[in-house]
Amino acid sequence: MGEFELIDRFFKRNVPPPPAQKADAATQTIALGIGDDCALLQPAPGQQLAISTDLLVEGRHFLADVDPAALGHKALAVNLSDLAAMGAEPLGFTLALALPSERARDEGWLGAFAHGLFALADAHACPLIGGDTTAGPLNLCITVFGQVPAGQALRRDGARAGDDLWVSGTLGDARLALGALRGEWTLPPHVMAAARQRLERPTPRLALGLALRGIASAAADVSDGLAGDLGHILDASGVGAVIDGEAAAFLIAARADLSSAVDPFDSKRLLRMVLTGGDDYELVFTAPLAARAAVQAASERAATPVTRIGRIEATTGLRLAAADGRTTPLAPRAFDHFAGDPR
Amino acid sequence: MGEFELIDRFFKRNVPPPPAQKADAATQTIALGIGDDCALLQPAPGQQLAISTDLLVEGRHFLADVDPAALGHKALAVNLSDLAAMGAEPLGFTLALALPSERARDEGWLGAFAHGLFALADAHACPLIGGDTTAGPLNLCITVFGQVPAGQALRRDGARAGDDLWVSGTLGDARLALGALRGEWTLPPHVMAAARQRLERPTPRLALGLALRGIASAAADVSDGLAGDLGHILDASGVGAVIDGEAAAFLIAARADLSSAVDPFDSKRLLRMVLTGGDDYELVFTAPLAARAAVQAASERAATPVTRIGRIEATTGLRLAAADGRTTPLAPRAFDHFAGDPR
Repeated sequence: MGEFELIDRFFKRNVPPPPAQKADAATQTIALGIGDDCALLQPAPGQQLAISTDLLVEGRHFLADVDPAALGHKALAVNLSDLAAMGAEPLGFTLALALPSERARDEGWLGAFAHGLFALADAHACPLIGGDTTAGPLNLCITVFGQVPAGQALRRDGARAGDDLWVSGTLGDARLALGALRGEWTLPPHVMAAARQRLERPTPRLALGLALRGIASAAADVSDGLAGDLGHILDASGVGAVIDGEAAAFLIAARADLSSAVDPFDSKRLLRMVLTGGDDYELVFTAPLAARAAVQAASERAATPVTRIGRIEATTGLRLAAADGRTTPLAPRAFDHFAGDPR
Repeated sequence: MGEFELIDRFFKRNVPPPPAQKADAATQTIALGIGDDCALLQPAPGQQLAISTDLLVEGRHFLADVDPAALGHKALAVNLSDLAAMGAEPLGFTLALALPSERARDEGWLGAFAHGLFALADAHACPLIGGDTTAGPLNLCITVFGQVPAGQALRRDGARAGDDLWVSGTLGDARLALGALRGEWTLPPHVMAAARQRLERPTPRLALGLALRGIASAAADVSDGLAGDLGHILDASGVGAVIDGEAAAFLIAARADLSSAVDPFDSKRLLRMVLTGGDDYELVFTAPLAARAAVQAASERAATPVTRIGRIEATTGLRLAAADGRTTPLAPRAFDHFAGDPR
């Protein structure tokens, strides 16, 4: 199977029909898809184009024996998560794929990868509009495009002292699964199944991002760990934050299923997974106190739970508050790809 | 040096000031650059956004000991070449970069790579607007954005029987240099210097692409070889073409400096380099007979030489015409990344 046949068989599809209940921005916007030197997009009048790119490398972002359908899902999900964090609506994506020759001949692997990828793409009416395929060590680069009305994007630089600090969903469970896969600890099977789903099939919070337009003052997605990604918001906004340690500790979904009294699942370790675990693809966002009801209403509209876990302060830096109200400084330890794994 | 310091030091720059003589579409269009979850672009009213992505893998697209400045140049050049082939004006690009840890510590290498990259970016007022950096085997994915007025893009599907067939610049010299680097043959030093420049520092034909709007009926860039890339135009347009072998043979710049009477530089081999060599990043395009003067005027405006090398015919397939007018079929042998190197 040559390069062009591979593209034709697995990656060249017509733009999917829009789901019945969904306005389909993509089909109105894609003037030209796969097959020319460039794809052509025409955003609707007054819309800005939101763009994000992520490179996933075998051995770094996924293991060689990863389920290819999960890889296809996750590669797109992490990019859609960036659109969610801007409050942007997906329009389409490009895929650049380097494949070892044995993978390029493996129709089962390619079919499963394409299935995982397009299932998520179809669910968000976000078609593949172009790409590149080459031989090489397995890695893939997705660039995703969305649109957001000019001036309404959820940026990182809008957090203000006094704002509430919120996160969506649960945090830390992906790190729990990663530790089990790495042999750092063992999880009960039902806990592992749920945690692994979080690691391999993250849910981009697109509906919540859209619902928070005009409500959230700042937002980012949690890919490198809550402390690190919140740190980017604090830096960009020139403010600080206090995280309520008790509220944060409850964010790990598996908490109730693990005996948090014994190492390695003591409460300190679980809290660290929440704060620095990463790979969560939830949203961390800020909103004024006066918007609490609006945030809750947005959460319900988007069918996505949110938790208030702290507040923004004028004093820069990130602090953790204990139950007695005492705070300790928290280093914003984001995942650094060149510094080894600090988690 | 960690990931974020690396980005700050080598890749985070302010959008460059526009060159004095040049309208700067990018600075009007980039609403938000590096540092948030997404970049935000706002194309001018009536403009479509042209998008292309390319993945360059060490050992496949460049050698491990490549001059890093040349790598930076070429990585962006091959993407800008896709914009040129659409008649689009550059707006910006994203860079996703996987670096082995020894490269991530090599400030000389990173500085030279960034210098080569940004020198070309600045020359075309095409700033870096976002990206991703990770550890991994050296490879890089650039996605480039341009704009073109709706309906004016140079597509592949507009060639019509009777149209002239044109190419810009010279073809085959990059393949000549690659063969010398691979030890397939030896070139006189001055020939190698010029050919290597063509291989490592290709010139994206952006000015010509813009000048050909409204004149060319179809266009593509020559990355995989003239026969293959012209083949894409023929397939998309449902037509065929005859290439004048004598005209094509003169497209290789080094021809006059090589003794074409002796193997490996016999005329047949030189013609094959022109037809299937690849890595040329010239434009192959078609235009009606009535537009010959307009094509020449566009060539002069863009200060880019063009050569008429054949014609489009209703009969599908690609044919080579000898001096006596007899034609032989020519297989459209594009470079296929999974089929080995057919050149």
